[in-house]
Amino acid sequence: MTYRAPISDILLALNHGAGLQAAVKAGHYGDFDSDITAAVLEEAGKFAGDVLAPLNRVGDEHGIKLADNKVTTAPGWPDAYQRWAAAGWNAVSGPEVFGGQGLPLAINAACTEIWSASNVAFGLCPLLTLSAIEALDAHGSEELKQIYLQKLVSGEWTGTMQLTEPQAGSDVGALRTRAERAGDGTYRIKGTKIFITYGDHDMTDNIVHFVLARLPDAPAGTKGISLFLIPKFLVNADGSLGARNDIYPSGVEHKLGMHASPTCTMTMGDHGGAIGYLIGEENKGMQCMFTMMNQARLGVGLEGVGIADRAYQQALAFAQERKQGRAVGKKGDGLDPIIVHPDVKRMLLQMRSMTAAARSICYATAVALDIATRANDPKVRADAAARGALLTPIAKAFSTDIGNEVTYLGVQVHGGMGFIEETGAAQHYRDARITSIYEGTNGIQSIDLVTRKLAANGGASVWALLDELSSIVKQVETSNDPAFGTTGAKLRDALGSLERASKWLLERVASAPNDALAGATPYLRLFGSTLGGCMLAGEALAARSNGEAGSDPQRYVTVARFFAENIAVQAGSLEKTVTDSADAVNGADAALLG
Amino acid sequence: MTYRAPISDILLALNHGAGLQAAVKAGHYGDFDSDITAAVLEEAGKFAGDVLAPLNRVGDEHGIKLADNKVTTAPGWPDAYQRWAAAGWNAVSGPEVFGGQGLPLAINAACTEIWSASNVAFGLCPLLTLSAIEALDAHGSEELKQIYLQKLVSGEWTGTMQLTEPQAGSDVGALRTRAERAGDGTYRIKGTKIFITYGDHDMTDNIVHFVLARLPDAPAGTKGISLFLIPKFLVNADGSLGARNDIYPSGVEHKLGMHASPTCTMTMGDHGGAIGYLIGEENKGMQCMFTMMNQARLGVGLEGVGIADRAYQQALAFAQERKQGRAVGKKGDGLDPIIVHPDVKRMLLQMRSMTAAARSICYATAVALDIATRANDPKVRADAAARGALLTPIAKAFSTDIGNEVTYLGVQVHGGMGFIEETGAAQHYRDARITSIYEGTNGIQSIDLVTRKLAANGGASVWALLDELSSIVKQVETSNDPAFGTTGAKLRDALGSLERASKWLLERVASAPNDALAGATPYLRLFGSTLGGCMLAGEALAARSNGEAGSDPQRYVTVARFFAENIAVQAGSLEKTVTDSADAVNGADAALLG
Repeated sequence: MTYRAPISDILLALNHGAGLQAAVKAGHYGDFDSDITAAVLEEAGKFAGDVLAPLNRVGDEHGIKLADNKVTTAPGWPDAYQRWAAAGWNAVSGPEVFGGQGLPLAINAACTEIWSASNVAFGLCPLLTLSAIEALDAHGSEELKQIYLQKLVSGEWTGTMQLTEPQAGSDVGALRTRAERAGDGTYRIKGTKIFITYGDHDMTDNIVHFVLARLPDAPAGTKGISLFLIPKFLVNADGSLGARNDIYPSGVEHKLGMHASPTCTMTMGDHGGAIGYLIGEENKGMQCMFTMMNQARLGVGLEGVGIADRAYQQALAFAQERKQGRAVGKKGDGLDPIIVHPDVKRMLLQMRSMTAAARSICYATAVALDIATRANDPKVRADAAARGALLTPIAKAFSTDIGNEVTYLGVQVHGGMGFIEETGAAQHYRDARITSIYEGTNGIQSIDLVTRKLAANGGASVWALLDELSSIVKQVETSNDPAFGTTGAKLRDALGSLERASKWLLERVASAPNDALAGATPYLRLFGSTLGGCMLAGEALAARSNGEAGSDPQRYVTVARFFAENIAVQAGSLEKTVTDSADAVNGADAALLG
Repeated sequence: MTYRAPISDILLALNHGAGLQAAVKAGHYGDFDSDITAAVLEEAGKFAGDVLAPLNRVGDEHGIKLADNKVTTAPGWPDAYQRWAAAGWNAVSGPEVFGGQGLPLAINAACTEIWSASNVAFGLCPLLTLSAIEALDAHGSEELKQIYLQKLVSGEWTGTMQLTEPQAGSDVGALRTRAERAGDGTYRIKGTKIFITYGDHDMTDNIVHFVLARLPDAPAGTKGISLFLIPKFLVNADGSLGARNDIYPSGVEHKLGMHASPTCTMTMGDHGGAIGYLIGEENKGMQCMFTMMNQARLGVGLEGVGIADRAYQQALAFAQERKQGRAVGKKGDGLDPIIVHPDVKRMLLQMRSMTAAARSICYATAVALDIATRANDPKVRADAAARGALLTPIAKAFSTDIGNEVTYLGVQVHGGMGFIEETGAAQHYRDARITSIYEGTNGIQSIDLVTRKLAANGGASVWALLDELSSIVKQVETSNDPAFGTTGAKLRDALGSLERASKWLLERVASAPNDALAGATPYLRLFGSTLGGCMLAGEALAARSNGEAGSDPQRYVTVARFFAENIAVQAGSLEKTVTDSADAVNGADAALLG
């Protein structure tokens, strides 16, 4: 079945949950005209539904092929990519001076959700290009920018990010790829990278690789890593393509999902070494990587949201069509659609509410990253940067955990049909599985949240956020709308749990780091559930009061209530897990090895 | 990597958690000599590790082929099956009068876990045969038993269970396959069944199908269903094989997992109708099915346990080998195995403790089913039957949920490698996905738990179990072993939540059925988490006091503690979800369809 972008849900989350409307009103978005938001998203949704969604299954079934050092993508993919880029979708948030439209990241975040929902393996390619643009724009020389940036912004060429080696995954500092100074200002790179997404493909006539490597005299670890731009084809002075560079795909992985996205082993140096151009300074490659990590991680979080929404749409349609059993109390012949059964309703509401919560968190992250670069007031920018930094690991890990959980439920709603590949529910489940691993595993995100983001400024970013969330909860409490059920009480409890767990961790992050680390994963879940619950409640309040949400704003109240009573309610137990279980975790060796 | 059966863990769970030792001492197992348990399991573990485990990957990669109306299994599979049957493994708990060894179901349950862990797609075939044996033994005519039972018990022939049709899945009563009386006491069956596990294969020279069909004059719904035995090849009076019967595989499914297990569409009637023999009485087929449902559902629960244990063993080995980063506080060059990181320890402990809890629940179910047929005292038998009935949906649903969760973590521990099919972690994740769907979806199990098992006798079975669990918790509380941490408090809270949620549901199951049904899934989770937590604590106490568990019984204390502080601790929020969220679920239509 096809995909329909949930424009009303997206607009509510973007404008109210994530606070885009308020930020625009406050002047943080300069001359951005937020009236265009809906039109842009409608167009994105149309392209996604018409062009990308039908290729999702094709890509899964055909996969990609590697032959003669070239990767071929699935039928229809190169054409779709070129149409997508030609329509300007790669350039939505790109810098205007290099041909981008300069729209907010928040708009591009909603678009990223839409591409991911329609075809996550397709949408992954531009995510990498976006990171490449960010690295080049922030750290590249003027000359490199002039040669590469416009074509990357337009999407005429794509980018890759090459960090991983067999011995260097989460531990990037262990990489061994070698770069030697050629004497003319360029470098010769030799080595092997693995797990390189879209490392080669036939959708564009050039690919711009961003490769981490180590100079001969570099210090050990992360302080001795440099970032190089390595084009697949060298670029002549007039902008035309020159010689083939010495970087080739030497293998592709057979993966659980994302079959249409080539995951390449890249070999450099079989013909003397790939010609590379330094980005930033020698041995400062890790800083360049950190620059773009926020956006890349947010992008993967949005993949989680997108896949989840697609799985929900498919499960909902199935539950409305598939007839089995009767509704309670119904007599006589005939069968009812399975959506009448409370257990099926529960699964669908869980899918919908979790997806909505993750969406709101991701969009809020994008708005914070926008304000951090767009606002005039340096204090506003600094606060927003801190907010964006705090939310990024949650946006990435919580949303991708949810992508996995929602696609699991999507299979379950289909019953036996869900296990049959033809149905398509299983593809979403398979595709989602990588999102909690790549771009920093969700364990790494949790550690980042506890040791860097929570710990920054003694927790100030967290306390500021808790205050905002508390005022939303107060509005729920005073709304006197019985449709909210126990939402206010559940969210109030959750805020208390989040505050106590945050304090407990803050007290230990320096003095008893292993205790803090042991609780990192449940803490991130606690944070995401509480934050998501409050944001959904805020959106429900906004929908009730401004009538923007169409004919039935109460549906957002139901979604918020379900999330509070089923997901955010877990905050109390998660708090206890954070504070009570470190001894068991850190004393686990005998239990594990026995 | 290979599979090593965790004999110490299994024996502790079987003898102490599940209460086999006490039941034998109480005389409920007649002359069963429990000294042989360990030896039988050691042998099973050896066969599984040597023969079945190496075929697991082969089966996944080759899958099965359908050509010329015949299914061919993966290379090595027919030989392995025949060796397995020849070694007597199909006959472990079969009736002695037909050549079985008459060992307890509890022993066979442990063996089922072992087959499933080593090769779940292989182990699925005998599970179906076991159901067929049970149906035939309980309801078949003496003549049919004489012809078929010995060969089914030995495993020389396998059995299938054929319920599902395109329009009749969870709603079996909607089936349409027709049976006509042939006039000679036999029947002619025409129709199409789907999703038939091992509906055809080349591992044995005959297959005995058990097919649900409807007579022309049958009442509508489940009261008009009859059960027929339909052999693939008719059997002559001397026991030799006769003509090919009119039942053929006409299609096989392309599935997410379990690739080596053929899932067939079976067509009957292309050549005049399949010759079938009635089992039990006309129109009483559903009763025959219910007879064997307990064992079949337990079998699937054990698949969940087995896959989980296999995934755990693989993840543990990887975490001990794979080096990334340094342990906190460690200086100097070099990398540490990732098992030093608290977040990785957490994942592994979660895998281990969840698997152990599910194992204990499954084994306890088997012991109850054993006592229900073996004890002398009718009161003891009746109580055990009620216990077995109560535990069965939990054993099935909780264990298979856990199979999915543990295999998810198994992939996560592997990082990027987990997404690569070659690693093998993804196969466990794919294979596990069907277990929460087939043999009654986990939603159906939850509904069974609430509407039938909890509601039976005003909840008497639940209160009796809670009393037993409470006495275990009391022992933890009075043990004064600091290694238990907050285990006692967490389990005491969980018992309170389970009791309150049970009462809340009991009050509504008749008067407000949709409210009770809305809470069924979280209630089953609450039940499984509380029960599993108490059982692990009981096993830890037993390990400490009897020294059976080898050199370090404290490791079981750690496992029990981790489970209490991370999983059973969720009882409080699950209770609230059961009691508070029915309004949101049952008022969901506008939210879902908006």
